[in-house]
Amino acid sequence: MKWDRPILTDSGGFQVFSLAKIRKITSEGAIFQSEIDGSRITLTPEKAIDAQFVIGSDIMMVLDECTPYPCTYEYAKKSLTMTIDWARRSKKHFEMIVKKKKLSEKNRPLIFGIVQGSVFKDLREEAVAELVKIGFDGYAIGGVAVGENMNQIDEIVCWTTELLPKDKPRYLMGVGKPEEIVRSVHVGVDMFDCVIPTREARHGRLYVRTKKRVAEKKFYDVLNIKNATFRDDMRPVDKYCVCLLCTQFTRSYLRHLFSTNEGLGLRLASLHNLNFYLRMMEELRKE
Amino acid sequence: MKWDRPILTDSGGFQVFSLAKIRKITSEGAIFQSEIDGSRITLTPEKAIDAQFVIGSDIMMVLDECTPYPCTYEYAKKSLTMTIDWARRSKKHFEMIVKKKKLSEKNRPLIFGIVQGSVFKDLREEAVAELVKIGFDGYAIGGVAVGENMNQIDEIVCWTTELLPKDKPRYLMGVGKPEEIVRSVHVGVDMFDCVIPTREARHGRLYVRTKKRVAEKKFYDVLNIKNATFRDDMRPVDKYCVCLLCTQFTRSYLRHLFSTNEGLGLRLASLHNLNFYLRMMEELRKE
Repeated sequence: MKWDRPILTDSGGFQVFSLAKIRKITSEGAIFQSEIDGSRITLTPEKAIDAQFVIGSDIMMVLDECTPYPCTYEYAKKSLTMTIDWARRSKKHFEMIVKKKKLSEKNRPLIFGIVQGSVFKDLREEAVAELVKIGFDGYAIGGVAVGENMNQIDEIVCWTTELLPKDKPRYLMGVGKPEEIVRSVHVGVDMFDCVIPTREARHGRLYVRTKKRVAEKKFYDVLNIKNATFRDDMRPVDKYCVCLLCTQFTRSYLRHLFSTNEGLGLRLASLHNLNFYLRMMEELRKE
Repeated sequence: MKWDRPILTDSGGFQVFSLAKIRKITSEGAIFQSEIDGSRITLTPEKAIDAQFVIGSDIMMVLDECTPYPCTYEYAKKSLTMTIDWARRSKKHFEMIVKKKKLSEKNRPLIFGIVQGSVFKDLREEAVAELVKIGFDGYAIGGVAVGENMNQIDEIVCWTTELLPKDKPRYLMGVGKPEEIVRSVHVGVDMFDCVIPTREARHGRLYVRTKKRVAEKKFYDVLNIKNATFRDDMRPVDKYCVCLLCTQFTRSYLRHLFSTNEGLGLRLASLHNLNFYLRMMEELRKE
């Protein structure tokens, strides 16, 4: 891959959710059936940590079950007990490898616990308490953005961030749209991961800042570059943006690249939306 | 487009061939019917030159009819008469614009005539004689690689290169595979254009040099990166190649990019095959 900057990896916990049809969960781990040859692959908390060491990850996640939505209280409670047990095993295995590899406190990767508990406040509270007892370098909020509405996500995030240690990073998994990120930062989230900026870009939807600050409503517009209206538009996508797309090419040219299925269009649009997100985060940090 | 290096453009003559179903040819030019709204677009020799000036081309082609294969002698002869007439009109229009724009001999673009005449020797000879009379900066050999076998192409190329002026570049349009390029250079061709290196790359077929020189048989192998055999192959595609792909990534990683439909795979493979072609041409120039 030859990526020489920091790498954050998930554990496979999201696939326990997204590949539900071809997996079984036992207390030992998750057993996946290969789509290709039907063979069985067991993912345990220990194997998930091993894999992340092979990748050379700098910030690792423990293996968890990302519960589906909706989900009964009983299912969520039982799942959480297992997720906490897996977190404990993950941490133990992680420490064993760090010791074996003789990695110093400064050179070792970081390991994050993942708060589950579905939409149930007492379960989320229990999750935080138990994970903090085990002790992690940071805490992820998982099991969100899998079907709930945004008010529910806000609620879960608020419950959780209030209880999490103030001196450790908080990472909201799988979120989100620009306004969702802004709201989450305002209630104390530090880190995000999401396919939205690049996936939207590949569909020709480009974020353009309005003159509003990120704390205000409508701080961006979405420009659908495939629209006929851009056919002869010789302006950059966003004249204030410093990305490769905006400094070198016109809306008309980008539309042409999309119309003719030129791969360069996907690349330029992705670079632009990522730049939009980076500038948004920069502004949020300054606030 | 922001391409700041030399640009060579075709005139639309190939589309007179490839879009045969939706066009009519008259002595004035080719009339295309728009696939989108059925509207008619007339491409004349003059308009083809105008368009190439708009693009900012450095090497322009005259409008011609690229005859289909097979093609009767009568059709080819009649078509050639028109192609020569179009070449004359193209040159005249080109000179008028150069004068109007006050471009010096050093700063003006170049204009190439295109030799047609299908597979008929006397027509090819007539084409060369007439085009040389008009006078061009270089001469393209057109109407090949549209269905003939390689022996026929070789024959046409040999007839034509023998007659073309020795002090002007010869450009074989639409050719070709590495060995076809080598053979054509050996009979006096200087320039080529072809989709093969990039199209093959996008299909996962990568050229790798053997230890043979380009003048020898089997001077390259084709590696189909999608093959299962490369799944764990940690070697570069070509260990002697200096391209981005070969200096940074393994066969296994490239195969992974193709398996998961990552756009980066297409890009790296294209860069590699283009590098292979550039090195091949370098070696041919040294011979």
